[in-house]
Amino acid sequence: MSKPLKFGLLVFPNITQLDMTGPLQVFSSLPGAEVHLLWKNTAPVRSDGVLSITPTTAFADCPQLDVICVPGGYGTDTLMSDTETLDFLRRQAEAARYVTSVCTGSLVLAAAGLLDGYRAATHWSAVEALALFDVTVSRERVCIDRNRMTGGGVTAGIDLGLTVVSRLVDRQTAEAIQLRIEYNPAPPFNAGSLDTAPAEVVALAEDKFRASRQRRVDLVRQILAGGATNPD
Amino acid sequence: MSKPLKFGLLVFPNITQLDMTGPLQVFSSLPGAEVHLLWKNTAPVRSDGVLSITPTTAFADCPQLDVICVPGGYGTDTLMSDTETLDFLRRQAEAARYVTSVCTGSLVLAAAGLLDGYRAATHWSAVEALALFDVTVSRERVCIDRNRMTGGGVTAGIDLGLTVVSRLVDRQTAEAIQLRIEYNPAPPFNAGSLDTAPAEVVALAEDKFRASRQRRVDLVRQILAGGATNPD
Repeated sequence: MSKPLKFGLLVFPNITQLDMTGPLQVFSSLPGAEVHLLWKNTAPVRSDGVLSITPTTAFADCPQLDVICVPGGYGTDTLMSDTETLDFLRRQAEAARYVTSVCTGSLVLAAAGLLDGYRAATHWSAVEALALFDVTVSRERVCIDRNRMTGGGVTAGIDLGLTVVSRLVDRQTAEAIQLRIEYNPAPPFNAGSLDTAPAEVVALAEDKFRASRQRRVDLVRQILAGGATNPD
Repeated sequence: MSKPLKFGLLVFPNITQLDMTGPLQVFSSLPGAEVHLLWKNTAPVRSDGVLSITPTTAFADCPQLDVICVPGGYGTDTLMSDTETLDFLRRQAEAARYVTSVCTGSLVLAAAGLLDGYRAATHWSAVEALALFDVTVSRERVCIDRNRMTGGGVTAGIDLGLTVVSRLVDRQTAEAIQLRIEYNPAPPFNAGSLDTAPAEVVALAEDKFRASRQRRVDLVRQILAGGATNPD
């Protein structure tokens, strides 16, 4: 038997839980996999939607991972200038087989310098912020550039998780997990992307996200100017 | 302003977390919604995949819900004969606007008598067990029969969540949430159902699920014969 594959998913205050719980379900369905929920310590963190999440492993206790995954959510605004988290990601990325993200998690990888010169995806509302780094922004749902694998918004984490398993193990194992989680999606509407959603739904969303979008762009500019400090 | 809509998702030992976290992300994205994670008490429960989940509200403290949702997972085997849970569901179902489930959660609704004379969906591996009740088994991803809305396996919870919101609020609100969670799925393979997965993947899955499938059928037979007791 080969050594168990080690997966680590970052959890943090104001994470969008489905960014993490989607790939978590895929990774934890892999026979023999070792899966860690990682944060600075193991006290529960609040997600942006009711769920609190208890990390299983503190950064200091984390073994070298095969796959590190950074989910998204508003909490990534803070993480972009959080030295402890960025250092942890840089250390893991040196020997990880895949360095991955879902949604705005790619902003954190970029802030750690881990996407310099790479193509990467993100949530549609974070495209301008990501483009300020030395990153070529991709609109793919799962963007693979060498060993960086980055997903679009929230639910893209399920597609990303299956893609990671197919690359690290094999296609049949990924297909078996897809069948187990009956991932045969049938969205009741076709509003899942800016290209397909009705114009008035896009307009409402653009309105709603305007402030957070601008805040992110400002934050990234500050970070790149060397002026951002961790508000925590 | 109308009163906030109240959603409750059951959580329990050995829940398949994505059955719950999918619709949770949808419900908690609804402005003003009140969302409860429900169990007998508020001590954390272990899911079947790494995550422990902390209930927010004990059965005894739960207000009348607009939507009650029972997710699935191996833990439903135990719940099918758990009087306290079945009684709670029956009480809520009397005045809930929608009584819903994801995956094997429909077995629990059926065991509570809440699907008698209804059509309902479930995970592909639980079809025979559900059919033993007075239920017409549907292979739809989201099956709606009057105010019972039941989903297929695991990831069907996202489709179900959006469908619930479109019915309870309106289509545009559901579309706005779909855009926010960028639910524009692109499964890397076509293995998400028994009808589309490669034959050898289906064979492996049938093999792997054989024992749990038979155990469920036996359990339901016992329950219907009046002989099951809660092993807890």
